[in-house]
Amino acid sequence: MRNVKYARCVKCGRQYDATPNLTTCACGGILDIVYDYDYIKANLTKEKLKTRPHTMWRYRELLPVEEDTPDTPLRVGWSPLYEADRLGELLGVKKLWLKDDGQNPTASLKDRASAMAVAKAKEAGAKIIACSSTGNAASSLAGNAAAAGLRTFIFVPERAPKGKVAQLMTFGANVISVQGNYEETFELSKAAIDKWGWYNRNAAINPYLSEGKKTVSLEIAEQLDWKMPDYLAISVGDGCTIAGVWKGLKDLYAIGFIDKLPRLISAQAEGCHPVNRAIAENKPWEPMEENTLADSIAVGVPRNADKALAAIRESNGVVVNVTDDEIMAAQKLLGTTCGVFGEPAGVTGTAGLKKLCEQGVIGRDDTAVSVVTGNGLKDVANAIRFCGEPMKLPNDLDALVAEIGRRGLKTE
Amino acid sequence: MRNVKYARCVKCGRQYDATPNLTTCACGGILDIVYDYDYIKANLTKEKLKTRPHTMWRYRELLPVEEDTPDTPLRVGWSPLYEADRLGELLGVKKLWLKDDGQNPTASLKDRASAMAVAKAKEAGAKIIACSSTGNAASSLAGNAAAAGLRTFIFVPERAPKGKVAQLMTFGANVISVQGNYEETFELSKAAIDKWGWYNRNAAINPYLSEGKKTVSLEIAEQLDWKMPDYLAISVGDGCTIAGVWKGLKDLYAIGFIDKLPRLISAQAEGCHPVNRAIAENKPWEPMEENTLADSIAVGVPRNADKALAAIRESNGVVVNVTDDEIMAAQKLLGTTCGVFGEPAGVTGTAGLKKLCEQGVIGRDDTAVSVVTGNGLKDVANAIRFCGEPMKLPNDLDALVAEIGRRGLKTE
Repeated sequence: MRNVKYARCVKCGRQYDATPNLTTCACGGILDIVYDYDYIKANLTKEKLKTRPHTMWRYRELLPVEEDTPDTPLRVGWSPLYEADRLGELLGVKKLWLKDDGQNPTASLKDRASAMAVAKAKEAGAKIIACSSTGNAASSLAGNAAAAGLRTFIFVPERAPKGKVAQLMTFGANVISVQGNYEETFELSKAAIDKWGWYNRNAAINPYLSEGKKTVSLEIAEQLDWKMPDYLAISVGDGCTIAGVWKGLKDLYAIGFIDKLPRLISAQAEGCHPVNRAIAENKPWEPMEENTLADSIAVGVPRNADKALAAIRESNGVVVNVTDDEIMAAQKLLGTTCGVFGEPAGVTGTAGLKKLCEQGVIGRDDTAVSVVTGNGLKDVANAIRFCGEPMKLPNDLDALVAEIGRRGLKTE
Repeated sequence: MRNVKYARCVKCGRQYDATPNLTTCACGGILDIVYDYDYIKANLTKEKLKTRPHTMWRYRELLPVEEDTPDTPLRVGWSPLYEADRLGELLGVKKLWLKDDGQNPTASLKDRASAMAVAKAKEAGAKIIACSSTGNAASSLAGNAAAAGLRTFIFVPERAPKGKVAQLMTFGANVISVQGNYEETFELSKAAIDKWGWYNRNAAINPYLSEGKKTVSLEIAEQLDWKMPDYLAISVGDGCTIAGVWKGLKDLYAIGFIDKLPRLISAQAEGCHPVNRAIAENKPWEPMEENTLADSIAVGVPRNADKALAAIRESNGVVVNVTDDEIMAAQKLLGTTCGVFGEPAGVTGTAGLKKLCEQGVIGRDDTAVSVVTGNGLKDVANAIRFCGEPMKLPNDLDALVAEIGRRGLKTE
């Protein structure tokens, strides 16, 4: 990889060759991929991008893959960026855009990380990829690996919802339901990966994954014709995504494609916000309980807190915590004003942005992008609980007329 | 619309001006939009298309909208066309492509028809669109209308699954749950549409909807660089989709963009195949019971049978019926070999293609495209019933080693 210099530990600074199967530093710290921006500047232009396929692989010069590594088969990335004028007006900002990353092959932003895992596994000559997860990481890995002809072993805790297991089984993953909690599930996956040498797609252990995730901000910038907004709002769980988003923005700044860095808005659930608490109290992060229905960001022990905290601080970011009710209200608001159906964790960024507008932290002169990280079809159960009931009527026009009158609905 | 001549009844041939709120002919027949191909030939080139946005609206010259009608807001269309080499090899064809139309904003091909309905409703000056449906037509209408700032009234039978109702409510539709069966639901919607003059998005009544659907075959052709396959396989319910697919192909042939028309493969469920039965027995179609789990094509009284039958016959098409078990086997096959998760009705085309390959009707020298019409996340319940169980194990590596050995799984 002529565009990559090495990997460096964010804790102790130790450097490693960027081999395909890198994991964490000997000190336990997370690794970060360091690029040769001079090389990239000499080889990538905005003009060149215009002719490339609309997938995350259009940004090859900014990605840690070999020049001859093939694109992965599923169409990951280049999700739509919508101008959300009506929602922006409701919130009271100058301009708002929505990046709907639920429009990915397995319906979440995690496809970006899993596609990267598949590309790197191929480079490593691996035939099997493994991870432990019950959520979007698992389903995106299973789907992207199946399309590429790689096999997967996926470890889930026994409490994993049947629907998610069904997705994994449909993609042909070898699924191991571990009798125990998530920690025990993770331990068994680690033991198995050590024993058989499978390629490791555990987030925050494999440093390439957030490089895949960063493509979401590369796309936002290109879709905005490189004119960046004041704020970029995103939900935060283990911290890999916001870290990736920031990395992408810094990359673009370093190569001169953008001349302004937006401030990050880190949105977490009131019931589980260890990253935001560390920022708010300016202290090291500490574990928290996981009391939120936004399951994809219910992470009490964020595995990539170091990178996430650095990203928020470097960007002069804003943290905001939202209740489950505020999350579900944002889901409905996105549905009714934008036709976008996001999963609870997926709309938490928008819920946070709304709260900051109400608090006057963000206002009439500000522009913002809000990223929706996953599709609402992933979690229909919670939508059902919050969306309200339809009108129940007999086949009788008079009854309908009366009910519409009672509710004061406009019929024209 | 300079590209449209008029609408013509497929039954009696009567012609109508192509006003935005056309419905059926006075004789009850379905209308078909007739284009001025000379005008289109003079105004649309393959070269022009290359610079256009990747949505269904790139084909404006071939669509029945006014020149100044705005694109609808959601990113509908330009779903991926995958080269499905491994699946093609398994089935025994020369080349196979998969069009994954579950990758649309509300996760089905119906977004194409609903986006068209929204565009025409805007032309008609309507503020409200109505339809009766429990499925993809309803959710796609609710989503596309919400994004465009139009209101919807959607009539569902009381048996409608809660999850689908939740989608509608989240998009802010006015949902009326009618105490009765589908026929009664349809009647109340008709009475309400007549009373209030809402824009009508009932398939096969509004002739513009299949013009939206045809964009799926326009895209397939362009994505294949205008080199058409021997066969195009698709699932068939009320007949609007296959009719639209054929219309798109004929359009391209008429303007000289393609020089070959593929034969259509009409796949229906063994438990409900009135269209295929009419072809097989060369008789008028008759109603059938609706005994299949593929709910989106469980249509015993196909509302667009006339256009569908004409399409299959004109293309020298092939009909094939598949059992529910064959449908669910195709779902798993698509998941494991392509990383594509389709809903049961969505994978019925592939199930049919597989069966025809096994029967030797289609073989080693043939090329085919199979369209997946909806996302598997729409119906997780059936996937769960058919996908099998994971391995259930304690956190114990020895137990995992033993289980993997017992199952004969490859670990490298």
